[in-house]
Amino acid sequence: MKTFIEPTIEEWDELTTRPALNNESLKGLVADIIQNVKERGDKALIDYSEKFDKVILTDIKISNDDLENAVNFVNEEIKRSILTAKSNIEKFHITQKEKKVIVETSIGVSCWRNSVAIEKVGLYIPGGTAPLFSTLLMLAIPAKIAGCSDIIICSPPNKDGNIDHTILYVANILGIKNVYKVGGAQAIAAMAYGTQTIPKVYKIFGPGNQFVTAAKQIINSTGVAIDMPAGPSEVAIYADETSKIDFVAADLLSQAEHGVDSQVILVANNKPTADAIIEQLNIQTELLQRKNIIKEAIEKSRCIILKDQDNAFHFLNSYAPEHLIIASDHAEILSEKVINAGSVFLGHYSPESVGDYASGTNHTLPTNGFARAYSGVSVDSFVKKITFQQLTKEGLNNIGPAVEIMADAEGLHAHKNAVTIRLKSFSK
Amino acid sequence: MKTFIEPTIEEWDELTTRPALNNESLKGLVADIIQNVKERGDKALIDYSEKFDKVILTDIKISNDDLENAVNFVNEEIKRSILTAKSNIEKFHITQKEKKVIVETSIGVSCWRNSVAIEKVGLYIPGGTAPLFSTLLMLAIPAKIAGCSDIIICSPPNKDGNIDHTILYVANILGIKNVYKVGGAQAIAAMAYGTQTIPKVYKIFGPGNQFVTAAKQIINSTGVAIDMPAGPSEVAIYADETSKIDFVAADLLSQAEHGVDSQVILVANNKPTADAIIEQLNIQTELLQRKNIIKEAIEKSRCIILKDQDNAFHFLNSYAPEHLIIASDHAEILSEKVINAGSVFLGHYSPESVGDYASGTNHTLPTNGFARAYSGVSVDSFVKKITFQQLTKEGLNNIGPAVEIMADAEGLHAHKNAVTIRLKSFSK
Repeated sequence: MKTFIEPTIEEWDELTTRPALNNESLKGLVADIIQNVKERGDKALIDYSEKFDKVILTDIKISNDDLENAVNFVNEEIKRSILTAKSNIEKFHITQKEKKVIVETSIGVSCWRNSVAIEKVGLYIPGGTAPLFSTLLMLAIPAKIAGCSDIIICSPPNKDGNIDHTILYVANILGIKNVYKVGGAQAIAAMAYGTQTIPKVYKIFGPGNQFVTAAKQIINSTGVAIDMPAGPSEVAIYADETSKIDFVAADLLSQAEHGVDSQVILVANNKPTADAIIEQLNIQTELLQRKNIIKEAIEKSRCIILKDQDNAFHFLNSYAPEHLIIASDHAEILSEKVINAGSVFLGHYSPESVGDYASGTNHTLPTNGFARAYSGVSVDSFVKKITFQQLTKEGLNNIGPAVEIMADAEGLHAHKNAVTIRLKSFSK
Repeated sequence: MKTFIEPTIEEWDELTTRPALNNESLKGLVADIIQNVKERGDKALIDYSEKFDKVILTDIKISNDDLENAVNFVNEEIKRSILTAKSNIEKFHITQKEKKVIVETSIGVSCWRNSVAIEKVGLYIPGGTAPLFSTLLMLAIPAKIAGCSDIIICSPPNKDGNIDHTILYVANILGIKNVYKVGGAQAIAAMAYGTQTIPKVYKIFGPGNQFVTAAKQIINSTGVAIDMPAGPSEVAIYADETSKIDFVAADLLSQAEHGVDSQVILVANNKPTADAIIEQLNIQTELLQRKNIIKEAIEKSRCIILKDQDNAFHFLNSYAPEHLIIASDHAEILSEKVINAGSVFLGHYSPESVGDYASGTNHTLPTNGFARAYSGVSVDSFVKKITFQQLTKEGLNNIGPAVEIMADAEGLHAHKNAVTIRLKSFSK
């Protein structure tokens, strides 16, 4: 971890820049996969499973029996923990439902918005070494609360041609019946355009490897909505003389274990605190299972010393981290300085892990500086807000003349006439 | 206008499909423009203004004097109308600001969201034959309400090298000081990446021609946010035996005048009503200034007869129109059937024009079927919702064990350790 002491604002640009995400070389390959799925449907999916997942699938869809029996393969401790997480995630996300408010903007002119669920959504859940059932909780719970009528899941098959029992258990307790054993770019293509077995959806959610990310970019440019652009996971921690050194070190490490490209940034208001954290971080690393990944990630990480608090938060806002931990006694006051971040963790007892799993906030968050303009996943991500308006005769009398004048000034006479023809009818 | 009587559901797919938006041939040209602006900054902008706008610019930025003096060039009637529209748009959009709600998901676990404005936003306002000052109202008012600190405007210069006075007047009353005389793909590139004069922004809003649309697609794929994907404007109208024939005809025409590629669809529950509307439409067309554009647009338009109300709204939801007018005595009840639409106009006295200008709802809406997954512009479009959480020791004691178990099950031991190290410290 390299330390930078009081870097000037000119140097911030480089310090807040992420490594370039270069998936251009993949794009051609992924475009071919998408085209093949469009043309050959299920047959292409079965071919790609053989090629990439080393599995010959007889069925693409998980059977109802498999879904319902998954409960028997998950241990009680995990089930209890999942139910705790589910309850907290539900409690937080249910408050995001918007109530209809009718606004009378002028007398006789009523306007309102209805939040209406996106009917068909697809959730991508990565497979690989560990089954990310937590991601399924984070995507499916807001989809359910929003009221999406068709929710489907794609997740790559393991070597036995199955999906992990814990993922199936979570799908089943959330009442999702359509789970497909398909991964990678081919899964994204299948959900975007539909196959014989997998229905086409309007919006696709979920993290994935470079293939999945490239496929989401491509299908998004053809008009299929996605949750947000993707990049490697990241955390920034603000530390000061009140920080608990060992907690901060543990939090930096929990981010670093995600992968060698994970981004970890420590911003401290004094060097002794920063030095102590880095020392503790090196000690803790040795005790962790993923220490090789962690060491590589930490090597590329940065420690920034900025004495001035406002300056430090200005830097953090420039970086716009996915996760921001304010590891200070003064976290609550400092939190008011946050302008760009995905999710913020305040004080000494709010490690990022609690938000990753069970506190109730969502863990699907904007990375790569996208927090400057994007929000994390919430119930909002699963609804459209449709505006409605209803005018009475009096309402149209009130604002109609303004509309006529403005339409005329913009040269849109048929727009004007749609008002004029009505106003004239009133005086008949 | 071609009429389809009781088309089967198999035929809907074709009836709800928009003409393909083929801007692939433009993409290379637009990518070159973007690259040139990235490399040469202001110099490229001046070159393109000469080439495309036939104007040699000495300044790119509008002076403060020009902004403040614009008021003297706009007639009183238009100013009054603009102030009426502004007031209604403000009244509706201000209700979209979200209040902070702190949720205690478990004892000692507090979670909330803060709506924080996107700091830097760019608004593109098309020029051309008519100055679309209404679009500036629709974009700048929610940006102001959201609290965006840096709002910039780009709009192409007219033949005199200026921007229309009405646009400058609106910018000035909204307190926007940074207005640039740049149009087309080069304006989008300038806002996305910055030049010597034009600051880089995080999100770009606004409609435009094919060049602008292609440029927005390209910069979006590099991580700069945009309001929504674009397509030609469209309206669908539901008519029944209670409809006012001449009003419906006028509303269809007001959409058709936008351009030859405008989409106009009439869905009626009976043929006599539909026939009467089409007859009236042909009569009214002859009286309109843009009748040549209108005739071409109407020629490609469709009238669908579906007797069954549920069926008719099922069709309309499949089409997912940008604007939907329910021209019926029963509009309010029927509105509950709407699942996919941008903005909905109820009853006989709510023509689309009122929403285009002055009722208070936004007119920047999802076209091309994007209403299945996207919302129109609102205050939401100008904020990020950042989640926050703060746990007490008791809170971490309550949910920490669940986090440890889930992290362990996902193979993320450093995530687990960030909790364990804290829980252990409590018992010391």
